[in-house]
Amino acid sequence: MTAGLDFENWTCPVPLRDTPTVVMGHGGGGAMSAELVEHLFLPAYGPAVQGDSAVVPVGAERIAFSTDSYVVKPMFFPGGSIGDLAVNGTVNDLAMSGATPLYLSVAFILQEGTPLAEIGRIAAAVGAAARAAGVRVVTGDTKVVDNGSGDGVYLNTAGVGLVAAGVDIGAHRAAAGDAVLISGDIGVHGVAVMSVREGLEFDTTVVSDSAPLHGLVAAMLGTGADIHTLRDPTRGGVAASLNEIARAGAVGVELAEPALPIPAAVADACSLLGLDPLQVANEGKLLAFVPSAEADTVLAAMRAHPHGAGARQIGTCVAEHPGMVVARTALGGTRVVNMPIGEQLPRIC
Amino acid sequence: MTAGLDFENWTCPVPLRDTPTVVMGHGGGGAMSAELVEHLFLPAYGPAVQGDSAVVPVGAERIAFSTDSYVVKPMFFPGGSIGDLAVNGTVNDLAMSGATPLYLSVAFILQEGTPLAEIGRIAAAVGAAARAAGVRVVTGDTKVVDNGSGDGVYLNTAGVGLVAAGVDIGAHRAAAGDAVLISGDIGVHGVAVMSVREGLEFDTTVVSDSAPLHGLVAAMLGTGADIHTLRDPTRGGVAASLNEIARAGAVGVELAEPALPIPAAVADACSLLGLDPLQVANEGKLLAFVPSAEADTVLAAMRAHPHGAGARQIGTCVAEHPGMVVARTALGGTRVVNMPIGEQLPRIC
Repeated sequence: MTAGLDFENWTCPVPLRDTPTVVMGHGGGGAMSAELVEHLFLPAYGPAVQGDSAVVPVGAERIAFSTDSYVVKPMFFPGGSIGDLAVNGTVNDLAMSGATPLYLSVAFILQEGTPLAEIGRIAAAVGAAARAAGVRVVTGDTKVVDNGSGDGVYLNTAGVGLVAAGVDIGAHRAAAGDAVLISGDIGVHGVAVMSVREGLEFDTTVVSDSAPLHGLVAAMLGTGADIHTLRDPTRGGVAASLNEIARAGAVGVELAEPALPIPAAVADACSLLGLDPLQVANEGKLLAFVPSAEADTVLAAMRAHPHGAGARQIGTCVAEHPGMVVARTALGGTRVVNMPIGEQLPRIC
Repeated sequence: MTAGLDFENWTCPVPLRDTPTVVMGHGGGGAMSAELVEHLFLPAYGPAVQGDSAVVPVGAERIAFSTDSYVVKPMFFPGGSIGDLAVNGTVNDLAMSGATPLYLSVAFILQEGTPLAEIGRIAAAVGAAARAAGVRVVTGDTKVVDNGSGDGVYLNTAGVGLVAAGVDIGAHRAAAGDAVLISGDIGVHGVAVMSVREGLEFDTTVVSDSAPLHGLVAAMLGTGADIHTLRDPTRGGVAASLNEIARAGAVGVELAEPALPIPAAVADACSLLGLDPLQVANEGKLLAFVPSAEADTVLAAMRAHPHGAGARQIGTCVAEHPGMVVARTALGGTRVVNMPIGEQLPRIC
């Protein structure tokens, strides 16, 4: 039992918005997810939890260690599947710590009655994505739940990477004066999944950006620039990632709204569905905070890499309004970019 | 795509018993689980997969890396819950490689509508079990699936441990002449879960043996004995573990049936339910293969440890009938102890 919280006789934790049960928003990667971690998981586990990816010592080395479960629906979508998403997602979490991803575990929870051919296609996608990323699947697990207690396939990956000596990348290092960079278009993965799930048709098919980003990170580190912070804006999108960094680094973020690379098809879909593109998940993009003086060097390295061809600066890190993200509009006004509360796109990854 | 298997156009892999869909037996830890790994996952992932726990180099160190998902039903049972099971299970997989467990990841898949108080109790159990085992939860993930697509809580843990120089423990080292030891009573966890699930009442309540075993392993290694093989007989029970070791080590195993420590309540429950105690899951026991000359030393160290008080020798490893496990009965006859095929106790862990 953890000091201060009596889980045995626990009814309704006040900070958790007075809901006594799990709601979809708890899985959205926004404020409700953060509250679940802060008020429920952290008091239970203790203070060692570091976030999406932990950097910890093992003997004489430092490793990055990360995990994610995947419940995306449908399991196959334009540009990918739950299989490559599960590989790339964990590879990217490791890469955002500046680690070289090395090993993956893959654990399936299968629903009774799922066609084995579907499992085969997903496993093939896992294998292909792992080979493409240069990581090895070394261990795994399979559980089966009865029909009615699952939904096809749930997949968990965990990953281990090696962090080179001297590498120190994290939200705590974000600093006023940093340029805020993004590696390419915003909102593509979420719209790709939603469009097939909702049967939407646009002039062009939106294809998921699911991709491994450690090669891009290596190219950025190769410039010798002092990269402060990296983050892949998945669930909760760019808005959630920037708000998390602003809070963790106690800095403000000011975005230049006209600079945000939002493809027309994403903008159209978001308009139709009432979504904010800044809150839509990406699975092959990264945000980087780098000292302004080094921004051009880093951007040049990013643009020379296939996964960073569309890289650009979208804002700056400021000393004003710490913990807050604002966007300066084309007309010169500013608006607050809030942390998403719950879940605008359930089961997007 | 993997050479020789065309998953895109894959219909029904012949070795997989001609079932075109997932059945409960694929999650049982027996022959059907092994076939899924051998014929579906390994061709997709490549040959790097090592099993329950992988030992791999990271820089100058060797780590053990393991994962398991937990879908036990009910989530709370006599002696434990899905929370401590998830910690102890991964701690034990690491310990069976001779590793010192260090770090855990914990990933929840929550069903919408599950009481937060239940999640709190499970998280508290995770935290308490981690503290008891001396491992740190350093990273995690939470996903939510809609009502009807889950079953309360599914939990995944992955773990990382440090393998000391010179330690080499594995099924490949099992050798004719080894004594086969067990740390205590057989079949307790499975019967504890089944009894509450099926509403069975016995004279005594059977309580799960869920426990972390790395301290026991450390005590065994502390004797200086050359421990060849360790295995925690979870899903599929002692029968599955011994068959796996016999195959991997190309040795035979001969059990002395009267020496098998099967508590009366377990025997009664198994008799009532038509189960073989040797196929029932354990969550706090280990099997050890050690050179016969060192068996007494290792047994003494085991018995001096709280989790090994009931340790005894149950058989020997022989050169005859490689890959096969037999039991010698009290009357002097022998019977084959088969690898379980499917799932006699679904969702036991």
